[in-house]
Amino acid sequence: MATTQGLVIINTGHGKGKTTAAFGQALRAVGQGLQVCIIQFIKGEGKSGEALAVTAAFPGQVALHLAGTGFTWKQDREIVKAAALEGWQLAREKILSNVYDLIVLDELTYLITLDLVPEEEILDLFRERPQRLHLIITGRDATQGLIEYADLVTEMRAIKHPFQKGVTAQKGIEF
Amino acid sequence: MATTQGLVIINTGHGKGKTTAAFGQALRAVGQGLQVCIIQFIKGEGKSGEALAVTAAFPGQVALHLAGTGFTWKQDREIVKAAALEGWQLAREKILSNVYDLIVLDELTYLITLDLVPEEEILDLFRERPQRLHLIITGRDATQGLIEYADLVTEMRAIKHPFQKGVTAQKGIEF
Repeated sequence: MATTQGLVIINTGHGKGKTTAAFGQALRAVGQGLQVCIIQFIKGEGKSGEALAVTAAFPGQVALHLAGTGFTWKQDREIVKAAALEGWQLAREKILSNVYDLIVLDELTYLITLDLVPEEEILDLFRERPQRLHLIITGRDATQGLIEYADLVTEMRAIKHPFQKGVTAQKGIEF
Repeated sequence: MATTQGLVIINTGHGKGKTTAAFGQALRAVGQGLQVCIIQFIKGEGKSGEALAVTAAFPGQVALHLAGTGFTWKQDREIVKAAALEGWQLAREKILSNVYDLIVLDELTYLITLDLVPEEEILDLFRERPQRLHLIITGRDATQGLIEYADLVTEMRAIKHPFQKGVTAQKGIEF
């Protein structure tokens, strides 16, 4: 039984690599023939390099959705909330669709920490998902309920960051 | 000057996601049009899902080299050392070739922690590299000299791991 149960994986913490690791994981899954869906919750800067590469390279095997593109977390709360709820509705459809082997919910934790969607509603949906479906959740400050429900939780801790040294963000590396 | 200087990025720690994040970073770089080389030091299990996907999808833009494929860290020290040194020689050629914008040195830290290559020799090569070249280094227990030299260091900490719950490794997810 254990081998047919989809895993719930969380990449959290204040360091780099949460989303990047999730995309790497998606790439790994694609390499093994799995069907993958990625939903990014509210990224302000348009498609990242990973997103561009994934969608260009694997059009039939990776579905990428940007929920509320063009908005950022710093905008008006009602706009943020509307975009987040739209993304969450999309996540619900994709999770229950039984089409995918892996769904990445990028920056999902903010839905909870910003009080946009209750943790319990999210966990209820996870419990309803097709048995084989793996979920990867990213975002800072994963809540206790998420962590308890997850199988694998990794904290990305920043030990050293280039902005501390006055280095600016670089295309292809930082975004 | 700061924006033309390649970054040195380290993913370390005992948690998951070090290599996966590095592959995600490589994917991001490819998406932005950078030339990428990945050298994996001594992986025993053949090509991982990420490696399969990357090489299949971006044959002209990502060069992947498995140094000492078929060997593991648990084998005879002389075999391990020969494979590691071969990989290190390849890394030297690629780093100095001035062909790449990003080189991933996957599991490089073991060269130092297993006393196969001196830390100072590695740092000397890094200092000699083309100015624009970004490096990503992965592996447990990054040494102090590497951390001091790096621009960005992230520690992946395991908060929860599925093997603790009796779940076995799954194709496309764990490898």
